[in-house]
Amino acid sequence: MTTTLPTDVQPTSTQDTALRADVLAACGRAREAARAVRPLTRGAKDALLLAMAAALDAAVDEVVAANATDLEVAARAQTRESLIDRLRLDAGRLAASAQGLRELAALPDPVGEVVRGQRLANGLEVRQTRVPMGVVAMVYEARPNVTVDAAGLALKSGNAVVLRGGAAAAQTNRALVRVLRTVLVERGLPADAVVLLDQGGRAAVRHLMTARGYVDVLIPRGGAELITAVVEGSTVPVIETGIGICHVYVDASADLDRAVAITVNSKTHRPGVCNAAETLLVHRDVAGPFLRRALPALDAAGVRLHVDAATGALAADAGVAITPADDADWGAEYLSLDLAVAVVDDLDAALAHIRRWGSGHTEAIVTQDQSAARAFVAGVDAAAVMVNASTRFTDGGELGLGAEIGISTQKLHARGPMGLAELTTTTWVVTGEGHVRS
Amino acid sequence: MTTTLPTDVQPTSTQDTALRADVLAACGRAREAARAVRPLTRGAKDALLLAMAAALDAAVDEVVAANATDLEVAARAQTRESLIDRLRLDAGRLAASAQGLRELAALPDPVGEVVRGQRLANGLEVRQTRVPMGVVAMVYEARPNVTVDAAGLALKSGNAVVLRGGAAAAQTNRALVRVLRTVLVERGLPADAVVLLDQGGRAAVRHLMTARGYVDVLIPRGGAELITAVVEGSTVPVIETGIGICHVYVDASADLDRAVAITVNSKTHRPGVCNAAETLLVHRDVAGPFLRRALPALDAAGVRLHVDAATGALAADAGVAITPADDADWGAEYLSLDLAVAVVDDLDAALAHIRRWGSGHTEAIVTQDQSAARAFVAGVDAAAVMVNASTRFTDGGELGLGAEIGISTQKLHARGPMGLAELTTTTWVVTGEGHVRS
Repeated sequence: MTTTLPTDVQPTSTQDTALRADVLAACGRAREAARAVRPLTRGAKDALLLAMAAALDAAVDEVVAANATDLEVAARAQTRESLIDRLRLDAGRLAASAQGLRELAALPDPVGEVVRGQRLANGLEVRQTRVPMGVVAMVYEARPNVTVDAAGLALKSGNAVVLRGGAAAAQTNRALVRVLRTVLVERGLPADAVVLLDQGGRAAVRHLMTARGYVDVLIPRGGAELITAVVEGSTVPVIETGIGICHVYVDASADLDRAVAITVNSKTHRPGVCNAAETLLVHRDVAGPFLRRALPALDAAGVRLHVDAATGALAADAGVAITPADDADWGAEYLSLDLAVAVVDDLDAALAHIRRWGSGHTEAIVTQDQSAARAFVAGVDAAAVMVNASTRFTDGGELGLGAEIGISTQKLHARGPMGLAELTTTTWVVTGEGHVRS
Repeated sequence: MTTTLPTDVQPTSTQDTALRADVLAACGRAREAARAVRPLTRGAKDALLLAMAAALDAAVDEVVAANATDLEVAARAQTRESLIDRLRLDAGRLAASAQGLRELAALPDPVGEVVRGQRLANGLEVRQTRVPMGVVAMVYEARPNVTVDAAGLALKSGNAVVLRGGAAAAQTNRALVRVLRTVLVERGLPADAVVLLDQGGRAAVRHLMTARGYVDVLIPRGGAELITAVVEGSTVPVIETGIGICHVYVDASADLDRAVAITVNSKTHRPGVCNAAETLLVHRDVAGPFLRRALPALDAAGVRLHVDAATGALAADAGVAITPADDADWGAEYLSLDLAVAVVDDLDAALAHIRRWGSGHTEAIVTQDQSAARAFVAGVDAAAVMVNASTRFTDGGELGLGAEIGISTQKLHARGPMGLAELTTTTWVVTGEGHVRS
C-alpha cells in the first residue's frame, strides 16, 4: 500500500508536473481503450477472460519468479509475516486467480440489462439500460491476486481498468499485467484496457485521485488509512470499501446454541477480514447462561477478550482470562482474534451502542422473537443486517452476486458487496416518432 | 447562490472554528431527527406532506411578505431580471409548491421496496431493501421553490434535510421553513427534520461539504461554478447535477419535418434549463435541404446562430444572420436562445464531436435508419439518449419518475433524472436459522 511507504521524497514542482502529465496520459490511454471494450459482446468478453486464464496458467514460472523477487525484497525489509503472506503468489494461488477469471466468464453480462422500461402515455418508449462506467481505477495494497480479480471484473463489465497496487508487489504486478496485456493485443484489443500505474509513489496516487474526466470511479481497497486518504483527497468519484466494526447482539430470547455458534463463527472463521465480528453485545437477561458458555468457547478458539465489568465478573466465574475494555475497544476494528464484549440493558441499548460505535458494515442479532428481529432490522443503519446468521455472510459470493470487487460501506451507488452490476452505470434510452414537448 | 456573493469576509480562525461547530451542531440535530423520520409509514409521511401543503396555503401572506423583502434587497442590488424572476414567490407559485407536496403524497413510498431477493441454496433468505439515506443536504441558488420541493422529496423518502439556499432568498426561505417546521412539531415530529442553514456565507458551505458522518449525501443544484466548487471541496458524498451541453444530431436518413420540429423544440422550449440543446450537428448529405428549412425556423424563433463555415454558406443563401463559431461555442452551455451549428461528415464524426464537447447529459439523434440509431445509442456515453425525440424529455416528470430532485450527470448512484428512489440507499437483510460459514 502506497501510504505505508517508509519514505516518499516530495518531488519538486517540475517533477510533479511531469508526473501528473504521465499519470493523466496513462489514464487517457485507458480511456481511449475503454471505447474498444465498451461494445464487446458477452461472447467476446468471456473468450477474452478464458484466454487470460490460460495465459496466466502458462506463465506460471515467469510470475512466480517475479513474485520471488518481491518476496526477497520484502524479507530484507523485515516485513511482517502477515503482509508477506498476502504478497505471496505461488503456483497454487496463481491457478486460483486464473480459475477466478473462468468463473467470471460463466456469469451473466451486466451490460445491456434493462433496469426499468415502459411505454409512456405519449407513446415514448423508455428504457433505463446498464452500460459500462468507462475507466475503473483501483488503489490497493501489495496483494497480487487483486490485480487479476480487478482486471477481470472491470473487463467483464465492459470497462478499462487502471491498477495501482502496493509497491511491494511491483514485480509481480508487472508480470501479471504483461500477461493480461499480451492477451488483449493477441485478440485485437488495445493493451491499455489494463494499465498498471507503478511509478511515482504517493504523488502518483494523488494525481490519480484528481484525474477528473479520466477516471469514472476509483475504488480503494485496503486499510482504514488508505481509504481515508483516498476519500479525503479525491475529486473523482470514489466508492469506499471495507471498514468493518461488526457487532453480534444476543437478544434475551436467543437460542443459546445458535448464539454461541454464530458468535464463534463471526469472530474466528476469518478474523482478518472486514465482515468478522469485533464486538459482542449481550442482553443482560441472558448474560449469565450465555456468557458462561460463550466465553470458554471463544477462549478455547484463541480469542482474546476485552470486556466490560459485568462480563468480567462472569469470565472470572468461568476461569477465562480477560482484559478490561475501554472506548478504544468499542471503536476497534481488530482484524485479529480479539473481541470486545459488553452486557447491555436491552435491545434499545444495543442499538444505541451500534449507532455510536458501528461502521455501518454488518450487524447481527440472534433472537427467537420476531418483534425483536423486526426492531433490530429497522433500527440498524448498515449495509447488511443478519438475523440468526453469522456476520461472515456479507460477501458477494455468499449472497449470490457471483463475484465481488469489494464491500462498500458508503450509501451512494453501492452498499454492501459489490459485484459486476456495481461496475456499471445506466443510460436512459428514449425512442419516439418525432416527439416534442408542448 | 453563495458562490456569487460579491464579498465574503474571510473569518478569523476562531470565528471559523465556532462556525464549523455551529454547522456540525445543526447537521447533528438533523441526524438525530432523521431517526424519527426513518421509521415513518407511508401513511404518516403522506399525512405530513398534506398538512405542510395546507399550512403553506394558509401562510401565503406571511411568505409573500417575506419574499417582498428579499425582492426589494435584490432590486436595490441591481440584480439581473432573470435572477429576480427565480427569486419571486407570489401566491400562484406558492400554491404550485403546495400542490407539488400533494403530488408527492400521491406517489408510492420508495422505502421498503425489495430491490432483489432470493432464498439461497443453504436456506438463507436474502432481501436487498430500500432504506432512507439519513440526512440529505441541498446547496442551491436563490430559488425558494427548491426549498419546498427538496424538503418534500427528502421527507417522503424518509430522510431529514439540511437546506442551504442562496443568500438572496434568506427571508423567504426562513418563512417557508418556519411553516414546515411548525407542521412537524404539530405532528409530534422533531422540527430539525428540516434544517435551514442561513448563516456564515461561503465558509458555512465549506463546513457543510466536509461534515463527514453528519451528511449522507450532498446535492448541489445551480450553475457550473457552484457545482464545481462543491465537487472539488467536498469530502461528503456528492451527486453532481445539471450541466447540460446537449446535442441534436440530424442523420442523413432523418425525416426532415421531425428533424426541424425536434431541433426547434430542443432549443427553444425552455432555453434556460440543462436539457435544452446547445449544439446542432448535421450530416453533410442532408445539410442543404435540412438547414435551408431549419435555419429560418430557428431564426424566426429568435435563436442566435453560431455556425461553422459550411453552415454559414447555407445561412447566407437563406438570408439568415449568423456568427462564426469557435471552440468556445462547441463547449458552451449557453442556457439562452443561442445555438451552435456544425455540419459533420458522418455519424462517427458526430460521435467524435459529442465525445469531445458533450457533458454526458442528453444526446439526440433524428434518423429513420435503424442501424444509425443503434450505433448512436451504443456510441454515446450520456445520461440519456433520445432517438427521434426532443432533448427536453430528460426530466423526472416526463420519464415517469413522478418527481425530480435534479438531473445527475455523474455515473455513480444516479444518472439522469433523480426521483424518490435516488434519495434512498439499501440494506441487505439476511435471515437464517443459526447459519454459520464453514
